[in-house]
Amino acid sequence: MAKFILTFTIILMSLFPASSQESNSVPELIIGMEKAALERWNQGDPSGFLEISADDVVYFDPFTEHRLDGISALTNLYEGIRGKVHVDKYEMINPRVHATENMAALTYNLVSFSGENTFRWNCTEVFRLDGGNWKIVQTHWSLTKPELK
Amino acid sequence: MAKFILTFTIILMSLFPASSQESNSVPELIIGMEKAALERWNQGDPSGFLEISADDVVYFDPFTEHRLDGISALTNLYEGIRGKVHVDKYEMINPRVHATENMAALTYNLVSFSGENTFRWNCTEVFRLDGGNWKIVQTHWSLTKPELK
Repeated sequence: MAKFILTFTIILMSLFPASSQESNSVPELIIGMEKAALERWNQGDPSGFLEISADDVVYFDPFTEHRLDGISALTNLYEGIRGKVHVDKYEMINPRVHATENMAALTYNLVSFSGENTFRWNCTEVFRLDGGNWKIVQTHWSLTKPELK
Repeated sequence: MAKFILTFTIILMSLFPASSQESNSVPELIIGMEKAALERWNQGDPSGFLEISADDVVYFDPFTEHRLDGISALTNLYEGIRGKVHVDKYEMINPRVHATENMAALTYNLVSFSGENTFRWNCTEVFRLDGGNWKIVQTHWSLTKPELK
């Protein structure tokens, strides 16, 4: 009987390999990584994002003249604002992950509360599986419905 | 000798399989698809983008309250502006594609010239290979350095 159960288990494992379990957990993993980095960011520490960004990361935000290319450019930008961001509370609204085996796109709306101010953001992060670790290869921050001059 | 050449060719083919050739051409393919859709868009025709967007596409632009989810929501938005966009000339600046086998992220800056007006954009498109066809699963348009109130 034990042998039968073992055989049955092996058959089940071959029908539902680890990759299937992993693919189920990718959205949770990606969202968890983003939240952890965001919570450090909200306390003025950009290293959370830098540590999970790939060397060839590209980056957009509403304050840069054009896309930034590469981890050095992003590091320069982030080091310039280290210690200057203070967010009291945030809401990650409706995070969604489109995932394939080696790449995943996370999108969400973000609301950041800082003192009397509320900031609303659109965010897209693209992650790539590099040597077993998910790394950000693209970050795009923009303001939700900005009030234009 | 013929046999030697054949063997050598087979070894070469195994060293540089078709997937390697395909991955070289993915950026060109993706950029070409985007330009073709953009050129229709610039003449007021959103169908170019709709035809290459997946059912589960998600979408950000600076005028929506939050992320739009799904091809129906995107179709509703685009049909509302059909015939209303007229761009005389555009420049796709520094397009770059981060590609894996089944997913690719295209980023670029866009300048659109419309009469006396010039509009500057940040753009991220995420494509996924669905049944042999690349489809957009995520579009993020934002204004480059918008002048805020």
